[in-house]
Amino acid sequence: MADHMVVRLTACFFWMFPLALEAKLTYIAIRLPLKGEQAAPGAPWPLPRTWTKSTTRLMVDPTNFRFASSMTYCDIVTSAFDRYYRILQLEKASSLSGLGQVITSLSVDVSNKTCPGYPDPNMDESYNLTIGTTSRLTSATVWGALRGLETFSQLIYKDEQEQQLFVNKTQIIDQPRFHYRGIMLDTARHFLPMPILLKNLDAMAYNKFNVFHWHIVDDQSFPYESVEFPKLTEKGAYGPKLIYTQENVKHVIDEARLRGIRVIPEFDTPGHTQSWGKAFRSLLTPCWEDGKPGVAKPNFHGAYEIMDPSRDSTFTFMEKFIGEVVKVFPDQYLHLGMDESYPACWKSSPNITSFMKENNISTYVQLMELYVTKVLDIVERTNKSYVIWQDPIEDGTKAKPDTIVEVWRGNSTVPWQHYMTRIASQGYKTILSSCWYLNYISYGQDWRKYYKCEPQNFTGSAEQHSNVIGGEACVWAEYIDGTNILSTLWPRASAVAERLWSSRDVTDVESAKFRLDQQRCRMVKRGIPAKPILDGYCGDYEFGFPESMGIYKQETQEEHPNTSAGSPVWSSSSLTFTLLLILAQKIVRIFYHL
Amino acid sequence: MADHMVVRLTACFFWMFPLALEAKLTYIAIRLPLKGEQAAPGAPWPLPRTWTKSTTRLMVDPTNFRFASSMTYCDIVTSAFDRYYRILQLEKASSLSGLGQVITSLSVDVSNKTCPGYPDPNMDESYNLTIGTTSRLTSATVWGALRGLETFSQLIYKDEQEQQLFVNKTQIIDQPRFHYRGIMLDTARHFLPMPILLKNLDAMAYNKFNVFHWHIVDDQSFPYESVEFPKLTEKGAYGPKLIYTQENVKHVIDEARLRGIRVIPEFDTPGHTQSWGKAFRSLLTPCWEDGKPGVAKPNFHGAYEIMDPSRDSTFTFMEKFIGEVVKVFPDQYLHLGMDESYPACWKSSPNITSFMKENNISTYVQLMELYVTKVLDIVERTNKSYVIWQDPIEDGTKAKPDTIVEVWRGNSTVPWQHYMTRIASQGYKTILSSCWYLNYISYGQDWRKYYKCEPQNFTGSAEQHSNVIGGEACVWAEYIDGTNILSTLWPRASAVAERLWSSRDVTDVESAKFRLDQQRCRMVKRGIPAKPILDGYCGDYEFGFPESMGIYKQETQEEHPNTSAGSPVWSSSSLTFTLLLILAQKIVRIFYHL
Repeated sequence: MADHMVVRLTACFFWMFPLALEAKLTYIAIRLPLKGEQAAPGAPWPLPRTWTKSTTRLMVDPTNFRFASSMTYCDIVTSAFDRYYRILQLEKASSLSGLGQVITSLSVDVSNKTCPGYPDPNMDESYNLTIGTTSRLTSATVWGALRGLETFSQLIYKDEQEQQLFVNKTQIIDQPRFHYRGIMLDTARHFLPMPILLKNLDAMAYNKFNVFHWHIVDDQSFPYESVEFPKLTEKGAYGPKLIYTQENVKHVIDEARLRGIRVIPEFDTPGHTQSWGKAFRSLLTPCWEDGKPGVAKPNFHGAYEIMDPSRDSTFTFMEKFIGEVVKVFPDQYLHLGMDESYPACWKSSPNITSFMKENNISTYVQLMELYVTKVLDIVERTNKSYVIWQDPIEDGTKAKPDTIVEVWRGNSTVPWQHYMTRIASQGYKTILSSCWYLNYISYGQDWRKYYKCEPQNFTGSAEQHSNVIGGEACVWAEYIDGTNILSTLWPRASAVAERLWSSRDVTDVESAKFRLDQQRCRMVKRGIPAKPILDGYCGDYEFGFPESMGIYKQETQEEHPNTSAGSPVWSSSSLTFTLLLILAQKIVRIFYHL
Repeated sequence: MADHMVVRLTACFFWMFPLALEAKLTYIAIRLPLKGEQAAPGAPWPLPRTWTKSTTRLMVDPTNFRFASSMTYCDIVTSAFDRYYRILQLEKASSLSGLGQVITSLSVDVSNKTCPGYPDPNMDESYNLTIGTTSRLTSATVWGALRGLETFSQLIYKDEQEQQLFVNKTQIIDQPRFHYRGIMLDTARHFLPMPILLKNLDAMAYNKFNVFHWHIVDDQSFPYESVEFPKLTEKGAYGPKLIYTQENVKHVIDEARLRGIRVIPEFDTPGHTQSWGKAFRSLLTPCWEDGKPGVAKPNFHGAYEIMDPSRDSTFTFMEKFIGEVVKVFPDQYLHLGMDESYPACWKSSPNITSFMKENNISTYVQLMELYVTKVLDIVERTNKSYVIWQDPIEDGTKAKPDTIVEVWRGNSTVPWQHYMTRIASQGYKTILSSCWYLNYISYGQDWRKYYKCEPQNFTGSAEQHSNVIGGEACVWAEYIDGTNILSTLWPRASAVAERLWSSRDVTDVESAKFRLDQQRCRMVKRGIPAKPILDGYCGDYEFGFPESMGIYKQETQEEHPNTSAGSPVWSSSSLTFTLLLILAQKIVRIFYHL
């Protein structure tokens, strides 16, 4: 019987073997073959705006590869070289063999020689990338260089048969479709430890996201360590270790900066402020029930709720607090929340009623407008700009012309387009997140619905369409913490990344899935636990293998002789994380030497 | 302003402080307070059958604690002592202070002095646990002792204010409601690396599961390394590293055994066998299209599909293969699959038509019955028993009386009860998985629906109800791999664990959530990335903290002087995993010494 089978085996050897090696995604059932166009290895994500491909291959020798630039005085450039050099080392390719052209360096030319402090809302992220006899990445700014380096790293692939790295001759001219491409994390409903936040910045860079919207505090907890008001954290955090110190915050901002990612913190008021009230109860409105203040009425209001707009001290506090925040966070924009301020508590309070009467305020919308206007004025005096959720604008509150309004409402009855039309018609710049609430998990390939959501697909003029400056994937953390944030986000957020970066006509979801699969395996290889989008495999980089520690296994103390970057990318990491990296690397070394 | 606030702070200090320290679960919105009865710290999961509580506390000094038993010749006992000793060390408690009774040891008395080879289908898992002036765990078998040790470890809690470990005086009389309490993992649609499988065995033990149903191969890949037919793996696995060697399989079985977990492998035929066909195509039926064999017809059938029942060689192969499997896997039961064998390919084949005519077979159900009967006969001759999915029994196929039928069908139109009634009425023992397909993720607290599913809630006689011997949580792996398996399973599978272990009347889901939250934080502390069930926190053990490596950080080379167990629990681990553990432990040590 066995002999019989061996003979047959020879016959079917050629039938299945190539598939077994090359395929990564596969069918759910054999009768349901996958649709769409298979992507050749080394397909980039998000898809560049112009991508001229070729089948001519150049060999890549990772150990003898150099990034060259005249801008080695700029840490943004050198740390990127360092990161991408390490990514290049992840593939355990055999040494060069066979004849053929070899690519030994990438020349990175940035026309603006400034080494910028921080990425800004209007940064130029365009780049041109030529892979050929000479290989060159050109860009106007270092931010474009970062995006181009990411693309370059994605073009490189391993030939499974030859066990060697290649990159095809390529010409790419690329720039993002939208300026604002964000990920919102909520660190208040659950605390997210620093290593998770930092890993997420890496994943964002791999997908060319450029804004980390940090929903840092909320009703449930206040992990942001305030310098002016340390009691906010002492009383409002979930626990003494569940906080972001000033050093942690600086660390996040620094690592984000090196990846061309802006950090926009959100301090959401006047609602969502229970945790503020733990240290400073007088900030909140005492709610009334049974003729007494400070009494909860389940299903209607808590004992104290929503900032108290009737007290001057509320705004004195906010002025001081915002004065701190605008110094800690260098970005031009602050997110001020302003969502879901339901008036049940205000309605219950005779104090609020009196205040409204005295000030000739007849509706709770007007009372909200009073609060909103005062806080926006405070921010305006700091010369910062702000993002707010759509709620106050919907209610008619006027904001500064450069305000960004985030559209988050929308459902099958009233789609987000309804809100977008209304808000865009008032002339505000908007960002869309309604269709990208990634905490709403569902079974199967739900990335498809994120991919299909088109931010300019609403009724409006050309100008109103152009007022949509981008969007963001949001992950609210009711059911999310360090255990599942990365696998919940990735690669589902990658679908959002391509929608926001690539041309509007990139809509072939069946073909996109093969590139998305490459991108998810790329992330797994680099140490991000990006979950599968369909049956299949990532080869040597299954999560749970030592190899899946990705770039986190790299030595952080020795210099890489083959990059222009002297200092390792994690040199500014907290000691804790650095040690984790060093030791993780040692673990992996031991595996390699077995 | 700040002064003003500091004064206020004093006033609200007592208002929020205790809550901030003790609460782990919290509200989604302040107006929606959580329902149910808060559990005191140290509440066990699954709930014991009889649990007599007390508020009298004994102090626990983890460093001077001993497990005592006369059965130290039995590795099941000693390795359990070792594991639970290490779990006891996870809480960084300060040394004993204050007056009060101290618990210094747990005496573990097992009446049956046999050290069993492997857990069996009828093992006695009952135990009695008394915590008091003297503390004693008694059980009939070592399996009961394992369950009692887990409960004991869960009763211990840390008082946050005193930073000290306590256990309350307690009397527990416990035994499982159902004999069969399983977790099914699918390692064919995606490969699951060994460290993930091993971690899952730990998580299963923490929830008193006792069967690992290993759906090891399927259409997509054949990772099981066969001794008789190595080509099955060479051609059928996703890749050369994506396999379970004989050593790996033995390792899984050994670690499962030490935790009182049976390993039931599933080799699913005659459908779900594409991967078998990669090496041995003649096992599969050539499907016909356009007058030719071996041609796929999308949406109907593949080119080759479903084992070919018309060839004797199919059964010769199966006999040899099953002969190997029953030697490799020591459990009395094999899972033979037999599900979803759709006849489209058979219908297309003139060879099959001829075969049916020659053998007087008039329907495809009869043809399937021929296949099923022959394979069941093969297994019967090995003196093993089998589990099969419900499909053949539904179609009228007769199986051995000790066959276990797994009920997996059911939806909102035809609920699983319909199938259960039909199958139980034929006298078969059954296990239920229909309501516990945990790969079907959905937003929010879906563990509630798993918790509410009652396996004996169907129309039938008392005897038919008693034929339900348990159930299992299944995780099919279309969208699951090492990146997300553990956070998808846990703590959602814990809901199934309590349903299968605890009394039928344990149905208060609102109160259960507080214990479930403790259980999920317990798992996080022990190194399992169990995802949150609601807003809140686990304190020092958030996943992403070094502390969340749990028991995996422990030294594996030195002996623990305070346990009777000489050999470390991971001594039989693969070298790879052992090294990972040793080095992970070193990482954590460095953190501690900072």
